[in-house]
Amino acid sequence: MAKRKVIYGGACSLDGYFTGKDGAIDWLHMSKDVEEIMRESWANTDTILVGRKTWEFSKAMGGGGEMPGIKVKSYVFSRTLTSLSEKDTELVTSDAGAFVRKLKAQPGKDIIVMSGGNFATSLLKEGVIDEIGMNIHPILLGGGVPAFLDPGMRVKLELTECRRLDGGCVMVIYRVKP
Amino acid sequence: MAKRKVIYGGACSLDGYFTGKDGAIDWLHMSKDVEEIMRESWANTDTILVGRKTWEFSKAMGGGGEMPGIKVKSYVFSRTLTSLSEKDTELVTSDAGAFVRKLKAQPGKDIIVMSGGNFATSLLKEGVIDEIGMNIHPILLGGGVPAFLDPGMRVKLELTECRRLDGGCVMVIYRVKP
Repeated sequence: MAKRKVIYGGACSLDGYFTGKDGAIDWLHMSKDVEEIMRESWANTDTILVGRKTWEFSKAMGGGGEMPGIKVKSYVFSRTLTSLSEKDTELVTSDAGAFVRKLKAQPGKDIIVMSGGNFATSLLKEGVIDEIGMNIHPILLGGGVPAFLDPGMRVKLELTECRRLDGGCVMVIYRVKP
Repeated sequence: MAKRKVIYGGACSLDGYFTGKDGAIDWLHMSKDVEEIMRESWANTDTILVGRKTWEFSKAMGGGGEMPGIKVKSYVFSRTLTSLSEKDTELVTSDAGAFVRKLKAQPGKDIIVMSGGNFATSLLKEGVIDEIGMNIHPILLGGGVPAFLDPGMRVKLELTECRRLDGGCVMVIYRVKP
């Protein structure tokens, strides 16, 4: 069995934002291409890791972040929250790197990181992210939630896939080099 | 004859930097693909517009920024410089948007913008850039000269080309929508 992967990414603008200013996501282009990619991706996933800010954002948007009808276990990482009431959702306040390494050593499907640059960058620093996938949209937003912050080191990647999607979007998938 | 285009872009990291910290460009991947693209691009170009910072950077690197053996007219845009001694190079201290609009109205080949995010973003704001081309390298740099800053508005793009290049690079070319 292939080792379970930790995957980070999402739909972003050419200038690297997951949302526009004030959290705007009205520029996202949905298509059959994207639906198919998401369906496949979620079918291979049983766990999601959520940064606290993204958790609060997705709750405000009316969802827990996961795909409707897909059963996943969610871990929300926070140094400030003290409890969560949601089903199948666990709060992690301990060291994220150590926690994710332990999770990866357990059998299971892939693990998706749902986060803006903050939490994901800390995981990149810890070397626990295996794959980065971006759906680059044909727009410059100028500001918003950045996909990447400074990990304090260079992160080398290997392009594994590059596909033109509907609506002028480009999907790129990279393996993170150790 | 096709209208001359103003083109902005360059080789960047996945997190959107033209250079690493301290101006590092050792991560750039040269290949026959890139040589061919540059040759074609310079053959269609007779003018380059250079931001002051990029001008100083490229002089420090030992070049004027243009392709060796290619004859182009360079305009360096600055609010602080008072003169330039280089041949075929003219200092522009007046309004950049108006200057470029005038240039575009004259017959000629394409015009390449050589700049970090600063000068290019001011031209984007002015609506004078027609095309953006990025050669996205498989690396996260975490800092350096950004390709894009905040233009203070959304800039909508239309993907016209998407090509996988040697070394895991991805070339994307966009038309800037008016």
